[in-house]
Amino acid sequence: MLLFFFIIYSQDEIDDAVKLLLSLKVTYKTATGQEYKADSPPTDFTPISNSPDNVEGDDFVDPWTVQTSNAKGVDYDKLIVRFGSSKIDKDLINRIERITGHKPHHFLRRGIFFSHRDMNQILDAYEQKKPFYLYTGRGPSSEAMHVGHLIPFMFTKWLQETFNVPLVIQMTDDEKYLWKDLTIEKAYQYAIENIKDIIACGFDINKTFIFSDFSYMGTSLGFYKNIVKVQKHVTFNQVKGIFGFTDSDCIGKISFPAIQAAPSFSSSFPEIFNNRKDIQCLIPCAIDQDPYFRMTRDVAPRIGFPKPALLHSVFFPALQGAQTKMSASDPNSSIFLTDTPKQIKTKINKHAFSGGKDTVEEHRQYGGNCDVDVSYMYLTFFLEDDDRLEQIKQAYTSGALLTGELKKVLIETLQPLIAAHQQRRKQITDEMVKEFMTPRKLAFDY
Amino acid sequence: MLLFFFIIYSQDEIDDAVKLLLSLKVTYKTATGQEYKADSPPTDFTPISNSPDNVEGDDFVDPWTVQTSNAKGVDYDKLIVRFGSSKIDKDLINRIERITGHKPHHFLRRGIFFSHRDMNQILDAYEQKKPFYLYTGRGPSSEAMHVGHLIPFMFTKWLQETFNVPLVIQMTDDEKYLWKDLTIEKAYQYAIENIKDIIACGFDINKTFIFSDFSYMGTSLGFYKNIVKVQKHVTFNQVKGIFGFTDSDCIGKISFPAIQAAPSFSSSFPEIFNNRKDIQCLIPCAIDQDPYFRMTRDVAPRIGFPKPALLHSVFFPALQGAQTKMSASDPNSSIFLTDTPKQIKTKINKHAFSGGKDTVEEHRQYGGNCDVDVSYMYLTFFLEDDDRLEQIKQAYTSGALLTGELKKVLIETLQPLIAAHQQRRKQITDEMVKEFMTPRKLAFDY
Repeated sequence: MLLFFFIIYSQDEIDDAVKLLLSLKVTYKTATGQEYKADSPPTDFTPISNSPDNVEGDDFVDPWTVQTSNAKGVDYDKLIVRFGSSKIDKDLINRIERITGHKPHHFLRRGIFFSHRDMNQILDAYEQKKPFYLYTGRGPSSEAMHVGHLIPFMFTKWLQETFNVPLVIQMTDDEKYLWKDLTIEKAYQYAIENIKDIIACGFDINKTFIFSDFSYMGTSLGFYKNIVKVQKHVTFNQVKGIFGFTDSDCIGKISFPAIQAAPSFSSSFPEIFNNRKDIQCLIPCAIDQDPYFRMTRDVAPRIGFPKPALLHSVFFPALQGAQTKMSASDPNSSIFLTDTPKQIKTKINKHAFSGGKDTVEEHRQYGGNCDVDVSYMYLTFFLEDDDRLEQIKQAYTSGALLTGELKKVLIETLQPLIAAHQQRRKQITDEMVKEFMTPRKLAFDY
Repeated sequence: MLLFFFIIYSQDEIDDAVKLLLSLKVTYKTATGQEYKADSPPTDFTPISNSPDNVEGDDFVDPWTVQTSNAKGVDYDKLIVRFGSSKIDKDLINRIERITGHKPHHFLRRGIFFSHRDMNQILDAYEQKKPFYLYTGRGPSSEAMHVGHLIPFMFTKWLQETFNVPLVIQMTDDEKYLWKDLTIEKAYQYAIENIKDIIACGFDINKTFIFSDFSYMGTSLGFYKNIVKVQKHVTFNQVKGIFGFTDSDCIGKISFPAIQAAPSFSSSFPEIFNNRKDIQCLIPCAIDQDPYFRMTRDVAPRIGFPKPALLHSVFFPALQGAQTKMSASDPNSSIFLTDTPKQIKTKINKHAFSGGKDTVEEHRQYGGNCDVDVSYMYLTFFLEDDDRLEQIKQAYTSGALLTGELKKVLIETLQPLIAAHQQRRKQITDEMVKEFMTPRKLAFDY
């Protein structure tokens, strides 16, 4: 057909069309990181860089850096638009409640898990009694974990109990070795210490597999194969676009995204899933990890695997305020899981950024600002009682509740929570760690 | 001290010096692929590209392509200069004979293994009764191996017998999956078929470990750690310089060089070397593999391991001549290990490029040219008797021996050699393959 119409064009028109086509191909390559091929539809792969055009206000979000100049924290509505994910809305939360018969976790009710990809697919599968599994992880950059690190695990535990599904937890000790000034031995040791804190969150040993990359790689017949499959289908151009890697980065960093991608595929765990490769995965994580899984979702259909679904959480603020970077090397930037009741009290009283007014008189008159008050923010994470939280908000906003009193509520919430964690952690034996870390059949049949 | 002298320079001189310094830093980065850092000596890392400046004549050599327009083959003396390796000279060959008490292999006597790195270090170690081990490998790109593929294995077998040392053989099935249009299953199946041919070369099962990357990765506690160590110490800039990778290459290819590097370090085989990381490695390979090991030798001291030593062979010519690419998909480009006596005869008579003259009369008068005659070249590889080879050369050069007669010698050399190989291969059982591929203690104590 084309030839038929061709003859009615002049040579100039043809030249112009060819030029346009060539320029479109260049545009296509710039946008997708892939060469244009006729009859080959573009994948749904969307590289989202943090280049000035893409940074909303002063927010910057990638797996290594989260920055905002706003005391209320990152603008998550804008992040959803930028990342192309979906908001967890009332309808979705209601559906979860309806089909599981469980009251939605307060992280859902309060928008702490606020964004998702394909969660409705997971719920469809659940309704149809099709299996799925959970995957989350942690980069063990130090021995010390703080309360913010508990968020994904507390929520994952709830998901596991609510849906009764297997869970895999990846400790990226290889990532930490590549990115930090750490030996492999140290990174692995951190992984083991962190695993004890994770187990202390209360995961079911019969339904949970926890692995360090360094140790699992040498015992799994499925993991490395899936890593190489992903690595064959992602170019340097693509990871450059997604993660901002440069030519000076080591080849370990450049290929690492495939290692975080691979646990999204059930065949990475042949012992658990009986070599099935069709079991979908749901990943609860902080939204800074989304770039890894955007990449994973792009690759999945091309290597014959289902795309993982995602549930994204907001970031946990530093004691000093949402615009401050939390740092494991600064013990005052958060409450650590090893803190004593006295340390918790002192840290909160001394360092927790307050939305209160400068004097008691002013505070009584104008009230405090919960949107920027870190003690209040922390309570939204850890105080489960919705009514009490609402009372506190009203009282603080009206000025009836003083900053010192608000801090006291937080202290009295965190002290027993952390003491109980420490009690549970003490009971974790090396044998339990070993059992959690053994590739094995879990309490599910496939 | 610098500051003291600084004041005697004019502003212009300072500006010029700064410009010079900046340009030197750029030159440094271009040459080394690394940022210049004061007080940090450059590593001995020499990226050697095949850019026009570096290509001698029309020779092009990298791990995926060997090209020359010269019927005599690649100019190996120039390659030694370009790669910065050392010639295997009479002195070295004599030293090998003296300290081992074995007559040097005809591949050494005839310059088929012609280049080395640090072979004298290995001989020093041998004299001091310090252990070392051999490492060689193969990329299993098809089921069919040809006689040229035997060269490194025939020589490695001789080295193993002569020095009585352990040997590890890597099958890079992951590489073939990444570079070719192959499934992982197919690449692994090729690896197993190739392993049978390798075992049929006569390796000692008590002293030899053969592994496929896909299967060993999932059973070794040392391999992946060493891979990541290498990957942390090599940048994309460096692999770009050495291997010519581009931004459009997949991240699997970009990180693969570390996987070929890791077996150079004894701690990649904790089962064999009892977790020792100080045992040096000697790698016999065709010289196109040298880029991998230049990279490895650069990284080794930075991660606390000894540099591997190397012995480099020339390339095996295609039947059609040294300037023709051999191809597993063209059954007529070489003699395959599965060929029947009749196929061998037909292929050599029909396809082996001849250095003889057009007519018998001319040939008798002017003689043939052994330098370009493929049948003669093949005899240098497979006819062990030096005297007979020399007689043949003289007779062919003088014109006394006709092309058909020369081909007959080759046919009668290869037919029994391949028949014997086929006989030995038939006796390789699946159990033997499994035993060779099991990570285990070999017949050596560390």
